[in-house]
Amino acid sequence: KNFQGFPTREDFDIVEYELPALKNGEILVKVEWVSVDPYMRAYSSRYKAPYDQFGFQVGLVEDSKDPRFPVGTRVVSHKGWCDYCVIDTNDTKSEVDKVYKLPNLKGLSNSLGVGAVGMPGSTAYFGFLEICKPKAGETVVVSGAAGAVGSLVGQIAKIKGCRVIGFAGSDDKVKWLEEIGFDKAINYKTADIAAALKEAAPKGVDCYFDNVGGELSSTIINQMNDFGRVSVCGAISSYNENNMPKASILQPALVFHQLKIEGFLVWRWFDRQAEAFTELIKWIQSGQLQPREHITEGFENIPTAFLGMLKGENVGKAVVKL
Amino acid sequence: KNFQGFPTREDFDIVEYELPALKNGEILVKVEWVSVDPYMRAYSSRYKAPYDQFGFQVGLVEDSKDPRFPVGTRVVSHKGWCDYCVIDTNDTKSEVDKVYKLPNLKGLSNSLGVGAVGMPGSTAYFGFLEICKPKAGETVVVSGAAGAVGSLVGQIAKIKGCRVIGFAGSDDKVKWLEEIGFDKAINYKTADIAAALKEAAPKGVDCYFDNVGGELSSTIINQMNDFGRVSVCGAISSYNENNMPKASILQPALVFHQLKIEGFLVWRWFDRQAEAFTELIKWIQSGQLQPREHITEGFENIPTAFLGMLKGENVGKAVVKL
Repeated sequence: KNFQGFPTREDFDIVEYELPALKNGEILVKVEWVSVDPYMRAYSSRYKAPYDQFGFQVGLVEDSKDPRFPVGTRVVSHKGWCDYCVIDTNDTKSEVDKVYKLPNLKGLSNSLGVGAVGMPGSTAYFGFLEICKPKAGETVVVSGAAGAVGSLVGQIAKIKGCRVIGFAGSDDKVKWLEEIGFDKAINYKTADIAAALKEAAPKGVDCYFDNVGGELSSTIINQMNDFGRVSVCGAISSYNENNMPKASILQPALVFHQLKIEGFLVWRWFDRQAEAFTELIKWIQSGQLQPREHITEGFENIPTAFLGMLKGENVGKAVVKL
Repeated sequence: KNFQGFPTREDFDIVEYELPALKNGEILVKVEWVSVDPYMRAYSSRYKAPYDQFGFQVGLVEDSKDPRFPVGTRVVSHKGWCDYCVIDTNDTKSEVDKVYKLPNLKGLSNSLGVGAVGMPGSTAYFGFLEICKPKAGETVVVSGAAGAVGSLVGQIAKIKGCRVIGFAGSDDKVKWLEEIGFDKAINYKTADIAAALKEAAPKGVDCYFDNVGGELSSTIINQMNDFGRVSVCGAISSYNENNMPKASILQPALVFHQLKIEGFLVWRWFDRQAEAFTELIKWIQSGQLQPREHITEGFENIPTAFLGMLKGENVGKAVVKL
């Protein structure tokens, strides 16, 4: 079903298909890791229900009619929530449909292929660096900071020499963010946000990586310095609302501080994805970047993992192991 | 007094000063034209009352102790609402404090020095062209379209080959905007805004020049095409509110259509002002650009002109003739 308001388990149905015989250019993939992400909620209304739930997955090629993907290859695709799937390797309608080989993770968990070395990793890398263009010494704020993308953005900002403040929704998340190097993390559910941010960022905010939208973002944007940059990655605060929520307007701060706000979809940088993956793997191996995963086990638990992620139960990247 | 809510006549007082003798580097100016603009409302809280009301003016040098500005020169300064003033020509604390010679208007009214060939002109020219970067054939929307800046932006957009839609607050303004070449003008007070815009912009909106902020802007931004650009010049809808108003959030549209929104102050391009003036004068002389002025007469009527402008009574640039 298409979601109305907050999704429920009843919106999902598990269906068994008979897999067809492989045609030329197709591969049979046994899925090992499946991703659950906020954009799945946001994009629901674009499809006519019932539809196969899209999403990234890592899997092992078990049968192949494409010599570029021989049996035993690990691949990343957007084929979604299934335990086996047939992928047409020539399906290149859009970037998101293109199956690609899992990068050489040098011994790291293959699950990173849907996380820190997958779409969320490249989202954090390009969305932050290309749009915020952070300079060493600047103050960076991240909302949704304990999530898959936010936790990477904060750590990348530290690598680039910035002061980093994160907003998250629980004291446990706050504690973890400070452990992995955020200069300060703030529980937006319990803090006086404007005051806490003023204290944490006495020199004001230069860059803001926005995962949430809504009043939290308006408050942060109102504390930005002249020529501040905002990268808008998502608007989690609004995804489960049937009507567009309202928040304090941004225009006065935009004008008086000459701010720039830009939204993006990561596909914009699809042809540079290898560059991001190379850097991210290097940072993870050197210990500068610590990706954390929130792992749920079992195919039948994918919807539960998805609902938990929307409720903010995950710390780090929410993935499901099949 | 500093304004609280909508300004009133009682917030202003007319004071007589004895003008001091000129020192070296000073000029005595007899003021001829005084400007009233929305930013005067917005910036009020930055000053400790009582203060001399700032604002642009055009005047004639009557006495001079600076050979660069001999008697008889016409100058533009930010000395505000006065009938005579002494200007320190070496005051260069900020761009706005720099007095400069009125450009050669080739027979056009000197009042344009505080309008289409002054700060509002350069605001429209740079704020629109540099931030929206419009391309011929694109659809441009302007709010506050019948104001000093908005009416120029729409006409510049037409000169650049765009389709132009303006929002204004009365049927008379709508009529005038269509007379000067807007493809469509819409009365935002009476129209179903989303529907009227959809009809006027069947191919969607590529550029939006935002003078107002608030729900009108949220509605327009929600109808923008992928990679649309928004130039935020002002937020008139909020200036008379004591608390920041709320409106539908922009983040979902920003992300899904990869929009860019940027606020600006015109001083950013101060050193290129001559370029804007040259173009604007050329367009006015060729008849491609029709600047309209809303003239109030008499020094004592400046506050009334200001209040009328804030209420939207002006069509085109509001100026006062002394």
